[in-house]
Order: sequence, then C-alpha cells, then structure tokens
Amino acid sequence: MIVVEGLSKKIYLELKEPTEEDSRSAQRRILDALDEQGIEARMTAKVLRRLYPLCDRAGWKVTVSAVWNGEGFEVIDLEEGNTSQKHYGYAVDLGSTTVVVRLVDCETGTCLGEASGFNKQIQYGMDILSRIFFCKDQPEKLEELRKVTVHSIVSVLEKLETLTGISPGECLQMVISGNTTMIHFLIGMDPFCVFSTPYAVRADDPGFLEASELHLPVKGYVYCYPGKSNYLGGDIISGMIDTGIYNSETICAFFDIGTNGELVIGNRDFLLCGAGAAGPALEGGVVKTGMRAEKGAVEQVTLTEDGNFLLKVVGDTKPCGICGSGIVDLIAQLFLHGWVDLRGKFVPEKSEKITKKISLAGDETLQEYAVEYAPGLCFYQSDLDEFIRTKAAAYTMVECMMSESGFSMDDIDRFYVAGAFGKHVSKESAITIGMYPDMERERIINAGNSSLEGAHKLLINRNYLDDIHGILEKMIYIQFGAIDDFLHIMVAAQALPHTDQERYPSVMEKLKNMN
Amino acid sequence: MIVVEGLSKKIYLELKEPTEEDSRSAQRRILDALDEQGIEARMTAKVLRRLYPLCDRAGWKVTVSAVWNGEGFEVIDLEEGNTSQKHYGYAVDLGSTTVVVRLVDCETGTCLGEASGFNKQIQYGMDILSRIFFCKDQPEKLEELRKVTVHSIVSVLEKLETLTGISPGECLQMVISGNTTMIHFLIGMDPFCVFSTPYAVRADDPGFLEASELHLPVKGYVYCYPGKSNYLGGDIISGMIDTGIYNSETICAFFDIGTNGELVIGNRDFLLCGAGAAGPALEGGVVKTGMRAEKGAVEQVTLTEDGNFLLKVVGDTKPCGICGSGIVDLIAQLFLHGWVDLRGKFVPEKSEKITKKISLAGDETLQEYAVEYAPGLCFYQSDLDEFIRTKAAAYTMVECMMSESGFSMDDIDRFYVAGAFGKHVSKESAITIGMYPDMERERIINAGNSSLEGAHKLLINRNYLDDIHGILEKMIYIQFGAIDDFLHIMVAAQALPHTDQERYPSVMEKLKNMN
Repeated sequence: MIVVEGLSKKIYLELKEPTEEDSRSAQRRILDALDEQGIEARMTAKVLRRLYPLCDRAGWKVTVSAVWNGEGFEVIDLEEGNTSQKHYGYAVDLGSTTVVVRLVDCETGTCLGEASGFNKQIQYGMDILSRIFFCKDQPEKLEELRKVTVHSIVSVLEKLETLTGISPGECLQMVISGNTTMIHFLIGMDPFCVFSTPYAVRADDPGFLEASELHLPVKGYVYCYPGKSNYLGGDIISGMIDTGIYNSETICAFFDIGTNGELVIGNRDFLLCGAGAAGPALEGGVVKTGMRAEKGAVEQVTLTEDGNFLLKVVGDTKPCGICGSGIVDLIAQLFLHGWVDLRGKFVPEKSEKITKKISLAGDETLQEYAVEYAPGLCFYQSDLDEFIRTKAAAYTMVECMMSESGFSMDDIDRFYVAGAFGKHVSKESAITIGMYPDMERERIINAGNSSLEGAHKLLINRNYLDDIHGILEKMIYIQFGAIDDFLHIMVAAQALPHTDQERYPSVMEKLKNMN
Repeated sequence: MIVVEGLSKKIYLELKEPTEEDSRSAQRRILDALDEQGIEARMTAKVLRRLYPLCDRAGWKVTVSAVWNGEGFEVIDLEEGNTSQKHYGYAVDLGSTTVVVRLVDCETGTCLGEASGFNKQIQYGMDILSRIFFCKDQPEKLEELRKVTVHSIVSVLEKLETLTGISPGECLQMVISGNTTMIHFLIGMDPFCVFSTPYAVRADDPGFLEASELHLPVKGYVYCYPGKSNYLGGDIISGMIDTGIYNSETICAFFDIGTNGELVIGNRDFLLCGAGAAGPALEGGVVKTGMRAEKGAVEQVTLTEDGNFLLKVVGDTKPCGICGSGIVDLIAQLFLHGWVDLRGKFVPEKSEKITKKISLAGDETLQEYAVEYAPGLCFYQSDLDEFIRTKAAAYTMVECMMSESGFSMDDIDRFYVAGAFGKHVSKESAITIGMYPDMERERIINAGNSSLEGAHKLLINRNYLDDIHGILEKMIYIQFGAIDDFLHIMVAAQALPHTDQERYPSVMEKLKNMN
C-alpha cells in the first residue's frame, strides 16, 4: 500500500450525531475527528457556512477536503457521504513555449490524464526577451501577460476536463514548475529583472498562494517551485526532486538543454549549478534550414553505406527543415562516414552531395560548402561551425563545473538530460559529436519532462518541501563567466568529438571500424 | 516602554539595494530582514505584485504590514517609506442590541476612538429568538441577517472614520467578541442550534478568518473569540481575558447580567461557568413601566426623609419609565424606609403614595398595591414580585456555583459585574436588595464592557491566544437545572435581602440605623 502524504487530503468521517451528553459543535466534532488522525486543521468561513444543513442531511457521514498551506492544514470543503476517492490535483510544467498539465489522482498518486497547449505568451514574441520588453514598466501590459499566462494553464485544464470529465473545481491543489520569468508572469511581477543587472528578481520563492489570488480555478492553493537564481528557476529545482540527485551517493549531472542550458552537478554532499546560453542552435533556431520539432522536421538521420540519407520526418511527411535531434544525428553520421573531419570541416571529395553553395550570413552572401541532406535542404559549413560551438559550450559547462568541484569528467556516475532535446536526441549521436561525455550508454538517462515529474511528485508527497529548501541551501551557483579558463576549455571542445580524442574512446573505436 | 506583541506588526525596513554581490530577490531581502527581527513570514500574491516598482521608488526604505493568521505571520501590505506609526486595528463588541467598536493604535496599544450603533438585526426582532426564527432553515433570509450584521459593524467603522480620519482600509486586524448567536449571524451560520436541544452549535471557535471572506473591510484577518457553549459565548471568554480571573490566586466571580446572566466563578486552579435566564426584568423589560436606559428613563432613585422621590432621569427630561438601575434603587429605597417589608410586600400604611391600583396581567385585570414613584408612573406589587424572583435567580446562580466548587459565598474575593447593568446600577442598592452578596464595596468591581476590553487586549497582545485556549480547557459548564436544590435555594433568596439575614449584616445594620 502506498501511503501518499500529499499537499491535500480527502478524509471520510463517520461522526456521532450530537446528543445532550456530547453537544460539541459541528466544527469541533470534525476537527476532533481529524485530530484523532493526527491532523491539526483550521476551517475557512466557507466551510463553517456549509456545516448546516449538510452534516444533518448526510447523517453526519461527511468527507472533508483539507489542503496544506505551507504552515498547516486548512479544511476548505465539506461534502456529503464518502467522496474520498474523488481526490484530485494538478501538476503543471509552465514552459515558455508549452504548458503541460497532469491531472493527478491524489489518493493513489497516479496520473489520470495529461494534456498540453502552447503558452499564449507566444503572441507577444517567440523569445522571452521580447515578451519582457513588451511589458517593461507598463503595468497594464504586464497584467495582459499575466492573464494570458493564466489562460494558457486554464485552457489545458479545460482540455483535461474534456478528456477525463473532471473539472478544475473538483481539484484541490496545483503545483507549478516554471522558470523564473514564467513565474513572474504568472503572478504578475515585472520580469525585466531576470535579464538585467544585478539580476535580483522580484520573488524567487512564492510558496503557497491562494488559487483565487492567482485567478486559477482550483479550490485550494497553488504552489510554485522556488528558483535558485534568475537563470536557474523552479523548473530545475523540480528536476532535482524528480531525479533525486541531491540524495545520490555518486556524482550526477543534470542538464536541461534548450535555448538556455541549466546544469546541476553534485550528490548528497554538494550541488553546483550554473546556466548558460546553450544556444538556440540546439532547438534548430540558428541553423539555416533549422526548425522546431514540428510537422515536417527531420528528426532522425542515417547515412547509408552507399551515401544516401535515410530520414525520419515528424508527421511522416515531406521534409521542410531539420530540428535539434536531426542535426545531432546528421553531424554524427557525416562525421562517422568521414564527410566531416575531426576539425568539423566538410570533406567535399567524400560525396557529390557536398557542394559549394551560396548562403546568406546577415546582409552578406557567402560561398561555402554544404551538404544537401534532403531535396532542396542544405546544411552549411557555417551551420556546422555554429552547432559545434554550441555543443562545445554545453560540454564545457559540464567539464568546468566538474573541475570546480574537484572532480574529472570520469567521475560522473549518471548523466541526466532533461527537456525535449534530451528526450528526442540519440545518445549515440550526441556522444559521437562530443556533446555528451563518452560514458556507458545506460548511465546517460533521459529525464524527460522532469519539471512536470517533480511537480507531480511534490503534489503527492509534501515531505519534498523540506528537500526543496535543503536543495536551495546546498546549491552553489557558479558564474561560468567567472571561471578563468572557460573559453580556453571551450575552444578545446570545438572539434569532433573533442581535440583530446582520449576522452572519446568509444567514438574513436567506431571511427576505426567504419573506415 | 510597552512592548506590544499584537496580532499585527508594521515594520519599517531600510534594505540594501541589490548589487551583483548581493542579488537576493526583493522578496528574500524583505523576508531576511524580518527574520533578523525574529519574524518568520510569508507573502501574499498581492504583496509580491507590489514589490516592483515600489521598492526601487522608495529607495528600498519600506514598511511591511504583517498579520498573525493563527499559525504564522503573513505580509499583506507594503508601503513606501516609514509608515510604521500608522498601525491600526479594531476591537469589536458585537452585542445583540448594540455594536461598540474601538479603533486601536496598535503601535502604542491606545484607543484612538470609540463609537457604537444599534445592531441592525433589531429590525428582525428586539429579542434574539424572533431573529432566529425569522431565518430558520431559510438560507436567503440567513444571508440577509448576515449582511445586516456585517453592515452594523461597518456603519460603526464609518462613524469612527468620521471621528478620526482613519479608514477601515488602513486597518489590519479585527477582534470580535460576541455571544454565540451573534457570531453565527456574522459568519452566516444558522443559529437555531443555539437554543434548541441538544444545543450543539455549528461552530464555537472560528478563529482567524480572512476579512474578505466575511466581507469586512480590514486588510487582514478577523478573529472571533471562541465560546464555551451555546449560552456561554465569546463575549464571556473575552471578559475572562479582560479581568484575568483565570490567573487569580483568590476566588473571583464574574457576572454578566443582562437578558441572560452568564456567570464564571474560579481562579487560576478552576473555572466553573453557567448561564441562566436572569430575566428581562433586569433590563426593565417585564416591569410595567420599565424601559431601556434611554432618554426619559429613571436611572437613580432616592427616597427623602419626608417621603418624596428624588429622581435622576436619562437626558434630564420628564420621566416616562424606569430602567434596571432605577428599579434596583427604587426597591432598595422602599425597603430601607420600610415601605416594603422583608418579604417584599408593600406596607401601605407607610405612605399615601402606596395605593391600590388596577393593573393588567395578561388578559386579566388585577387590583394590587403600587407606589407612584413619579407623576403617573407606578411600580406594582407584581413588578416587585417579578423583580425579586429575578434577583433571587441571579444570587442563587452565584451561591449554587460557589457550593458546587466546594466554597461558600464568603470565599469570594472579587465580584466582577460586567455589562451595562453592572455599569449603571448602584452597588449599595444591589446589596441592599440582596442581588449582590454583602461584601466590602471595593471588592465589587464594575467590569464595564469587558467584552470590548478583552477584544482590545487580544488585539495588542497575541499571547492571550494561548490563555484563551487554556481557559476553554479549564472551564467546566454547570447546568443550573441539573443542580438538585437550585429551586430550594432560590426560594430562600426570594426575600429582601435574603431569608437568611445573617448573610447581609451591613444591610441589617443600615436598616437598624434607619428606623
């Protein structure tokens, strides 16, 4: 039996009817019964008003809904009969592009449904900065953004209602993980501070807020995961709770790779963290034919013996661009077949698919090699260079942080990759190009949407609240810019897989076998 | 210096501006500063939203408003600069006839103004029972009564605003003392239970409720004093806090005499309490020419040597009736001058002002003696009988409770009389007629509006919250009806001053001197 000590409780009580001998108030009768179960609680006025005639009508068999408010339990609802099985809550991953919500059965801890939708902030700009500039110091516009943020969540709740028949009004609590900017928008705080010196944000630990104050339709409270710093938000702390690396005996790395890369390295003794612009290259943003992993995006690439590209396209349609996982595959395949050399340069004599092309770089045109990986779609030398810089930056973040903590890359026991990139990219390809360290494949773990998972876990186990504050206290934030030889180490990583080939024995072995 | 540890705090903070070295969030900066002063607090979303641009604009010199919610402090407001001197709250005595509110300076603990108004429930009936029957099992009517209750308080707050210039929106917390029915109406709970078997009320300890949930206009919480039982409400517990008899070494009696009489007897070791129908006679309700202590009511009576009545009339106007304190004076004077004998019967030969009159008793007419205490205003034998029964009931409640606790009447060290009756009645007269015990006059203490005083005290000292729960635990409720010889003892008290004259030595001495 799983005992779930979550952020809410539904408790069925069979109370004794009042008599002259036992004329305790209805309120006291319920609070005493909860007390017997070890639950000290208070009641809202709304519940006090419901006591009569509900208790009498129900023959004193009632179900109370109690929610944790950060300090204690609050009885926020009262229902006739036994409704303890109808005990629901939401876990929310509030991403800057996508909002994912999970409807959780808080009695069993299981997921009853999951749905997602775009973050409607997108109408104010695809990138976060333009959204921030849109409302900087303009309270009405900030309010507009707050509302679309709330509406982005509510829309997904509506989808879930359609899916499951369970409405938000039946749900007690909500846990939200999001980066610092998203939480600022959600609450209605100007997030300009997140990206401007001295990077002191408005609030980093909102804690439990009344759902009604946030205009979210659950009955109780909304808990927002706290962040460590402007660039290291609640989504990462949620990932910590999900992966549990703060309890690990061995050293783990947790890497959330997206437009920004957030990295945590440590174990139960220490936690270092940092963030850097991993670069939009990883989301297909800088590469000329790059695109998000939407319909038409090449997501997997195999180069056959006879020099043809086998492509897997999202939606099984005609390819119209390439997304991050496709790019990693493409570069890995080009490299393994010798079409790209160790320095990351095209080797045109290897295939007639590599030709000189004219490309646009800013206002200038450029003649450069490119490979046509699909009819009419080319991957250019400048794309390659850009991507290699990006993967070098990612690798360097890990390496620098390991060395800051006095360890080497070899000491990483588990390497968690969070986020959509980690989910879709081929481990093998990512190692081949030197983006992931060369380690046993099973020790590289796709953490999936760990931000959502962490929200789910907390919703059904409030003991994690202590862990969260332990994590925040233990975490030390490293400014990569402040590390002396960061640039030096990054340049060394700007090769395939690395200038120091000894770090990639398995890749070298593969190369040998290919040729 | 008085250190006031009240239900709210206003704290002026001079914070350091964020720098790259100290880039804590605005939220953390404030919470850390509070923490340094030993205050652990959380923030509402409203305050999170105000952090920017307020902190910057104020040069990081801000004042936070923090309120106690029963479990911890909540920061509910933030202001620029030092506004810590503007720290206000309300103490409310929610009586069934009158609502009295005191505006308190919570920084110094002093009263800034006091105002009162009628309880607008009166439009639904002068007596509580008719109000209760009006809305019994009719939620819309209950809501109507809830609204007029709230409005009764709000009207007085408006008077206080006119008086002091301080608006409810500037006030943080409110403490309300009222009897169980009043609190039921205030929250919106059907109070029929208060007067119907098995006397199990809806709620007796509402605790801290959000002011907005009660539609009261303060910023923070409303605390309602808990009650001990249906008939022994929060107003009495508030009186306990005011008089402090639960801490006394010697035995005290606390008697709130009105339509109902509520009595507590005890000291730091024990507390017995009970309630009974003291009878509307004490408020001038049953006596034929009786009236409330309003304009035109005879409130003091002296009988001169030459057999004339000297009257003090409320409003210095022509007398049109007599109120409780006037009745007590009148009977005492009649008794001392021998116009009424020890059995409480008129002695017509003593004065020509005593004549046979025709009076109405129900549907019947009655010929009985009466004294004309003012032109055209008579006090009848039946009034006398009724009043003596009432005072005997009051005396008997004290005597029975003393004997229940194993003590005699002589063991009472202090005798507190609370409420309007206690305030206006002459101690001397009340002893003379055997309503109060015959004890040293300075040990009979007029506790005034102890319900209001207790609310005021709690507002500025939250340590009383512990005391309140201690009192409730310690208190034992005595059903007078369950005391075997209650009626027997009461009959013995139905004389002037008592059938056992040895109990009233000072009265006997006076009588001797008069004659």
